[in-house]
Amino acid sequence: MKTAQTIAEVRQIVSDARTDGATVGFAPTMGGLHEGHLSLIDAARGECDFVVVSIFVNPTQFAPGEDLSTYPRSIETDLAACEARGADLVFIPSVETMYPRQAVTSVTVSQLTETLCGRNRPTHFGGVCTVVAKLFNIVLPDKAFFGRKDYQQLVIVARMVEDLDIPVEIVPCAIIRETDGLAMSTRNQRLSPVNRSQAVALHEALQSAGDQIREFHRPARDIITAMQEYIQANAPNGEIDYIQIIDPQTLQDVETTDRSLLIALAVKFPEARLIDNMLLDSAGQPQ
Amino acid sequence: MKTAQTIAEVRQIVSDARTDGATVGFAPTMGGLHEGHLSLIDAARGECDFVVVSIFVNPTQFAPGEDLSTYPRSIETDLAACEARGADLVFIPSVETMYPRQAVTSVTVSQLTETLCGRNRPTHFGGVCTVVAKLFNIVLPDKAFFGRKDYQQLVIVARMVEDLDIPVEIVPCAIIRETDGLAMSTRNQRLSPVNRSQAVALHEALQSAGDQIREFHRPARDIITAMQEYIQANAPNGEIDYIQIIDPQTLQDVETTDRSLLIALAVKFPEARLIDNMLLDSAGQPQ
Repeated sequence: MKTAQTIAEVRQIVSDARTDGATVGFAPTMGGLHEGHLSLIDAARGECDFVVVSIFVNPTQFAPGEDLSTYPRSIETDLAACEARGADLVFIPSVETMYPRQAVTSVTVSQLTETLCGRNRPTHFGGVCTVVAKLFNIVLPDKAFFGRKDYQQLVIVARMVEDLDIPVEIVPCAIIRETDGLAMSTRNQRLSPVNRSQAVALHEALQSAGDQIREFHRPARDIITAMQEYIQANAPNGEIDYIQIIDPQTLQDVETTDRSLLIALAVKFPEARLIDNMLLDSAGQPQ
Repeated sequence: MKTAQTIAEVRQIVSDARTDGATVGFAPTMGGLHEGHLSLIDAARGECDFVVVSIFVNPTQFAPGEDLSTYPRSIETDLAACEARGADLVFIPSVETMYPRQAVTSVTVSQLTETLCGRNRPTHFGGVCTVVAKLFNIVLPDKAFFGRKDYQQLVIVARMVEDLDIPVEIVPCAIIRETDGLAMSTRNQRLSPVNRSQAVALHEALQSAGDQIREFHRPARDIITAMQEYIQANAPNGEIDYIQIIDPQTLQDVETTDRSLLIALAVKFPEARLIDNMLLDSAGQPQ
């Protein structure tokens, strides 16, 4: 496995791989790698000849007061994990490499960014889209792999790719969970034992909501109310940021639940803000 | 020479050319081709193996009330001219091909877009950047050729390319002028004979300003005042939109003229808004 810190190195290594006829798969990450990230490498490994991982904690997607400075960093173990899972190249740029001078160019996606996480993080997805566009231009992958845990990010990146005709296929990958159901997240490690134990309520609320939709197709507002009550009772240290039931393509709120939909939530614990979601088909079956 | 109307066709044709080892040069245009555009094809022909021209009147760079509907279109003669100058492929997409559904993604460049033409056309460069980013993603050229007549556009596109790490080299090309000095523009053909004759005052004012800077290094504000007076006297049917003397990189106004600078102007005639500029080195020599 190679590592590269400069754009020129990445371009040369990927170009050499392409000359040999390889297809290129790409998993962009912010490091702090867990099995969720590693499943993206597995997927890329399964579909492409040459697998590139990037590890870059992108400052422009953190607002002032968010957790940029405390975001978990673990480059040594990350590199070992990438190598163990068969990555061919890990790109580890510095902030100066990615933003050598004040960047005045930004890529923005409207509408899809104005709901869910975008409501309380209005600059977040602009930072995500711009850095992902840059990384795509540097790596030039055939396929890029994104986890469904950041469902809104996945939809926004896919729409950016479509709108800008970026020549990459976006491959969605399943949420990977701990044995008790908590969605894996780099930020989970920051939770106190008590809050880690409360955090499982997020997944339990989603499971219960899925059951009620599948069996009774109860209206979205009733499902959301039940989820709020469940999380308030079982994760009292968490503050609900949002619980929404939405159309999986447009991300617009839906009222009825006899249709394909996404249940998405964000809960702020003192140490970390957690997100999770569940995608259901029109019969209420998890996807 | 081939023509293509779909993105898939362009990608296939360019990909085939690349497989044969060709480097790809690209000249994006809105059609209504004149010698200025054709000089871009010549430059691409000289530097690259395979030359792509696009002809697309991009609606998103026109504001309501601007001249989208009356912008000159001459596809038959344009294609003949492209072939005569040695283009290998002309991409002629429809609006539906470029914008198959409401685009929610945009590429914007701040600061550089807020002066000169951007002041009275605040949405113009967002439309330009977004469509140029799309065209680059479709054609994937090694080099792209832009005329210096749209100097601000050139600087903005170059900055977008740099900030987003788009793997293309931007090649600036000289302004091509009519024999009387008027900068060639698709919109010139719309001028009445009287206004066509007055329009030469734009270039004359630039020439005179260059002379005064070269000989006396008069302050920028004096030069601008003299240009205003000259244009008001010699092109009374034109309304001055702006005359600015600026730093060629930052596009910020400068006060002294013993330095490299750009003199740029825009004048609105009833039938067409015209722009022109002159780039001077620190000795006042035209570049």
